[in-house]
Amino acid sequence: MKLDKSDFSEWYNTITKEAELCDLRYGIKGFVVFMPWAVMTMNRMYTLMEKEVEDKGHVPALFPALIPEHYLMKESDHVEGFVPEVFWVTKAGVNELEEKYAMRPTSETAMYSMYALWVHGLKDLPLKIYQRCQVWRHETKATKPFIRSREFYWIEAHNCFATRKDALKQVREDMEMTEEVIHKQYCIPFLFFKRPQWDKFAGAENTYAADTLMPDGRALQLPSTHMLGQNFSKAFDIKYKDENGEDQYVWQTCYGPAISRIYAALIATHGDDKGLVLPFDLAPVQIVMVPIYRDETKATVLKECKKLGKKLSKLYTVKLDDSDNTPGFKFNQWEMKGVPLRIELGPRDIEEGTVMLVRRDTGEKLKVKPADLKKKIKEAAKAIRANLKQNADKWFADKLSFTENIDDLGNKIDMHGFVRVPFCSDKVEAKACADIIKEKYHANVRGALFGSTDKPHGKCIACEKDATIYLYVARQY
Amino acid sequence: MKLDKSDFSEWYNTITKEAELCDLRYGIKGFVVFMPWAVMTMNRMYTLMEKEVEDKGHVPALFPALIPEHYLMKESDHVEGFVPEVFWVTKAGVNELEEKYAMRPTSETAMYSMYALWVHGLKDLPLKIYQRCQVWRHETKATKPFIRSREFYWIEAHNCFATRKDALKQVREDMEMTEEVIHKQYCIPFLFFKRPQWDKFAGAENTYAADTLMPDGRALQLPSTHMLGQNFSKAFDIKYKDENGEDQYVWQTCYGPAISRIYAALIATHGDDKGLVLPFDLAPVQIVMVPIYRDETKATVLKECKKLGKKLSKLYTVKLDDSDNTPGFKFNQWEMKGVPLRIELGPRDIEEGTVMLVRRDTGEKLKVKPADLKKKIKEAAKAIRANLKQNADKWFADKLSFTENIDDLGNKIDMHGFVRVPFCSDKVEAKACADIIKEKYHANVRGALFGSTDKPHGKCIACEKDATIYLYVARQY
Repeated sequence: MKLDKSDFSEWYNTITKEAELCDLRYGIKGFVVFMPWAVMTMNRMYTLMEKEVEDKGHVPALFPALIPEHYLMKESDHVEGFVPEVFWVTKAGVNELEEKYAMRPTSETAMYSMYALWVHGLKDLPLKIYQRCQVWRHETKATKPFIRSREFYWIEAHNCFATRKDALKQVREDMEMTEEVIHKQYCIPFLFFKRPQWDKFAGAENTYAADTLMPDGRALQLPSTHMLGQNFSKAFDIKYKDENGEDQYVWQTCYGPAISRIYAALIATHGDDKGLVLPFDLAPVQIVMVPIYRDETKATVLKECKKLGKKLSKLYTVKLDDSDNTPGFKFNQWEMKGVPLRIELGPRDIEEGTVMLVRRDTGEKLKVKPADLKKKIKEAAKAIRANLKQNADKWFADKLSFTENIDDLGNKIDMHGFVRVPFCSDKVEAKACADIIKEKYHANVRGALFGSTDKPHGKCIACEKDATIYLYVARQY
Repeated sequence: MKLDKSDFSEWYNTITKEAELCDLRYGIKGFVVFMPWAVMTMNRMYTLMEKEVEDKGHVPALFPALIPEHYLMKESDHVEGFVPEVFWVTKAGVNELEEKYAMRPTSETAMYSMYALWVHGLKDLPLKIYQRCQVWRHETKATKPFIRSREFYWIEAHNCFATRKDALKQVREDMEMTEEVIHKQYCIPFLFFKRPQWDKFAGAENTYAADTLMPDGRALQLPSTHMLGQNFSKAFDIKYKDENGEDQYVWQTCYGPAISRIYAALIATHGDDKGLVLPFDLAPVQIVMVPIYRDETKATVLKECKKLGKKLSKLYTVKLDDSDNTPGFKFNQWEMKGVPLRIELGPRDIEEGTVMLVRRDTGEKLKVKPADLKKKIKEAAKAIRANLKQNADKWFADKLSFTENIDDLGNKIDMHGFVRVPFCSDKVEAKACADIIKEKYHANVRGALFGSTDKPHGKCIACEKDATIYLYVARQY
């Protein structure tokens, strides 16, 4: 199987098939079967993300997958944004339902209907609840496995606060969680944007989102955080009594890391022409053992492998590949699957009292004495993480460019990915300028860099009014 | 809040509310919001069950929640059993769908449509895949939180084998997994039955199931295992080439531990008149620290508590309750929530260099020196598990009775729970006898004890034909 990452779309389609990550032949368009190798990594991604979310004071709950129509209809912007994409349940058994139910496209309206019953006073705040679940959206855009499908897997955290200030603090905390898990642990780089007003979540005051870049230079949205203000608390009547006994609407935020989509970024960021490359902590198999033998040495080698495998299994997920395939076939297969470390063990190694330890990310080979093996594995695991992160960061740094000239913009987007441009504003009235860019280059305005204090100068790249802000442009998924 | 477990139904309703396990006020009948305290325990239950299922060679996958109608219709018994309970998606956005989609009531038809594409030869077998997911059934019976609702959370494992013998071996392995996790780790006792032919899963050759007993003497089904034979493999065309190159249909089993329902059994089995009692490994908070102070000692006591809590947090989930409530209020609250261990710490304890360690299950109090605390906690955790299991087993052993006289059966059911009776057969033609019992005592035949070799004697308790088998009768949820 020949892979060539420079043709990203083809590479991605091939790798998702050859590494057995998903099966696209399920009988509903846009619905994908997630196969074991993908799910095992996604489960590890979930574990790390849920730990972080809980460490930051969120507790898990589970809300129904079905939302009654009258809940969904309570916040008008939200209705407009989501209703066109809703899968509707209208029948149970042979009976028509009196009210139809939406399969949750997102859970604001399910959760906030209950929050209204749960929040009474300051003692109930902040309320920080998340759920791990799947959601359904009848996307009209082309679907691509993990990147965009009509069913996806995520965590959604929904918080209530007494003040706007507390809510804004949560936006910052969400960004820190994204940095901690997605950058430091998954080793995926991103920029954190405040989206322009014309591209915010349906019902939000502001949307913030982490965008990574795929190898073809197109942006992929990772978690987003929505500052909901009091829009939903007013629609759902979520109130608390303040110190003076007066009713106040809560301030709300929500945060939604889509694990299945971040998995797409994981594949794309680290993979190479041999297949997947997985960070050590996210690999379903961390160490594959490949015995090297002839008929007459098979028994001895396998015995030695099993002995060593048993020891290592106490600390790591280890797979001994004792199938009848050739070592070369096995090397290729497990490289395609992205197993971070390979141990080769043959008669000569046994004689010499060593094993060969091979890194997937660099191909580096290390002759190791069994007594040193645990230490060397630990070092290698750490080195792999550092190397993946460093490579990804280095690649990503070069993807950032800037221009003030619209004629130059297309080239810059092609050569890099994200291009910073001066803009008249990020308010709704500036959408016309974004449309000009979209029409000319099929690129989108992704927003302002969160926390940036760069003062813009010159004119808006599209309308030539005085610039008030720097915005970032990229093609997008 | 006064609880009285001898009135089980009332006790159960009160405890699910007072311990904040669920909220029944969601806007769709039979759909319940699972609140954090319940979900945190259910997540721990999932972790233990998934570990066991994976240790037994299953790998995780994720199949779509929606099943196209033509998949669902492929196996005729299955259609008859499930279609009356299906929630149907008929619309996406404003458009009617060409084919309607079922929200999975169970995933045989979703998974086996793919298995037909995945299984080719002996090298693909056994195929052992599970998914962690939720399912939806429009139950017509009365719903009760966790016990029966229209949406529930489970694991479903679906396996393919080359031979009938391998499939039957899996039935036994499923029973062993149930014993290992549900009995040994959750401390819930059960009997493992082979269901009579008139009460098997829609599409199965045979159904096996673990039944526990609720405090009111009614049976609750925990995991079931279905020996599907070749019914589905023929309907879905799941074949492999055998050694002679000839096509053979696979043999199939499936296993379905409903975690949300087993959680109901956990509440019911261990709870008492003070509230929940949770096994140490399943408790969202394992140790609650209650500081005892007056105004003038508050600072010292809290400082000491925090110091100790920080240490213990490295090993256990610890909560320091530093709210303004009185110690007595805190004791009651955390007892209601079932926290296994309480540490009380006041000025006198600090002076004496001890803390008070209190067990939730027995109320036993132990003065412990800080240096011994870790050891004592470890011992207590182990003792709690042993005690919960022993109490539950002892109670359960007394719930098993037998009779050969139908006039005596009602009393026996009332006094115990499970009653063993001689029966003419467990084949479909004996359903009339089961109906007699159902009519007379509102009780059901649960099946034959799996693996029992007791030879029946005498006459069928209902029809007076010669008995061929012992079956067990109980009222049921």
